[in-house]
Amino acid sequence: MRLRHKPWAQDKLDAHPQYVPQQAETLRGQWQTRFAKEQPIHIEVGSGKGRFIVEMAKRHPEINYISIEIQTSVIVTVLEHQIREDLPNLQILHADGRNLNQYFAPGEVSLVYLNFSDPWPKKKHAKRRLTSPDFLAQYQEILVPEGEIHFKTDNQGLFEYSLASMSQYGLYFKQVWLDLHQSDFPDNVMTEYEEKFSSRGHRIYRMEAKFRK
Amino acid sequence: MRLRHKPWAQDKLDAHPQYVPQQAETLRGQWQTRFAKEQPIHIEVGSGKGRFIVEMAKRHPEINYISIEIQTSVIVTVLEHQIREDLPNLQILHADGRNLNQYFAPGEVSLVYLNFSDPWPKKKHAKRRLTSPDFLAQYQEILVPEGEIHFKTDNQGLFEYSLASMSQYGLYFKQVWLDLHQSDFPDNVMTEYEEKFSSRGHRIYRMEAKFRK
Repeated sequence: MRLRHKPWAQDKLDAHPQYVPQQAETLRGQWQTRFAKEQPIHIEVGSGKGRFIVEMAKRHPEINYISIEIQTSVIVTVLEHQIREDLPNLQILHADGRNLNQYFAPGEVSLVYLNFSDPWPKKKHAKRRLTSPDFLAQYQEILVPEGEIHFKTDNQGLFEYSLASMSQYGLYFKQVWLDLHQSDFPDNVMTEYEEKFSSRGHRIYRMEAKFRK
Repeated sequence: MRLRHKPWAQDKLDAHPQYVPQQAETLRGQWQTRFAKEQPIHIEVGSGKGRFIVEMAKRHPEINYISIEIQTSVIVTVLEHQIREDLPNLQILHADGRNLNQYFAPGEVSLVYLNFSDPWPKKKHAKRRLTSPDFLAQYQEILVPEGEIHFKTDNQGLFEYSLASMSQYGLYFKQVWLDLHQSDFPDNVMTEYEEKFSSRGHRIYRMEAKFRK
């Protein structure tokens, strides 16, 4: 993603602690206190500008969503959506996806969304991919038993890598889509990237993966 | 595959017992006796006309190959190749892939090839797909521990199904190719189908899957 420098972004995040909790580590195991209702928590790791998770939060009031993004100048756009929408089931976590277990207690999360994550195509950067073993270990730690990861991307190499990496880690695939937009998958909520790249003719790949008991 | 009726085919198979063993159930656990050298056995389930396995047997004298096909009028073409080539590391098994454990003892096989298997696209026929659980159980029974299945197809639906089915069964993927002919996979041996459908612009999917210890 091309990053525009937004020197005011951090101030804006700081000015809305009802949506963007400060000292978020203290919420570890306490996230339900941030929502109107106690209900399953779904997180998106690397939300970008948040179009996906904001739309999901609107469509699914029965789920509590947490948008996680490290880039200050990007996550501020999620906040701007949320300022307009004021959704009671959406919180914004300004944090690094590598340290999820500092922010969530074991079993606190029911589902992890990964959408159009950075492919890090060079082999030497494989450890930075959000479906590499160290990240999978984090998801496993914070997810409920049999928790799920829902992942989509237009990047063929990243999807190939992820099918291997995740199955080797011990996850299995409930379902796989090798051309999501030509399938009968209902209610697909598109990300910014997804709209852009599918309009250029890229295939969109998707999977729903689950940890074994 | 379009089947031509060949009334003479069974006679031809019967006339070449050195290549096509008769009463093959009696070879269960004894397949090494049919080859010039004792070395790992790789089988192809549903060989069709056998272009793949004949070429593999030529390229890999260090492996013993068994071509398995139920259709008499198709497997006779494998035999015709073998009459010309007389490869010491190729045997032909005229049998139904559903009954592999009647023909092979536990651990007798090192690798199972599945190439362009019938996709059986209707859900009610899912049990006939060569990557459905009953078939996977057979492969597991006859394979060595950590044995492998190498599968390729141009059928997107069958590949999606197989990624789910095989991972759910407990296999993991060593590697997955979502566009084999655009990859750097070395020494790909094409089947008859593969040449035909890739020349029409179909993507070829491939995976190498492994049973856990």
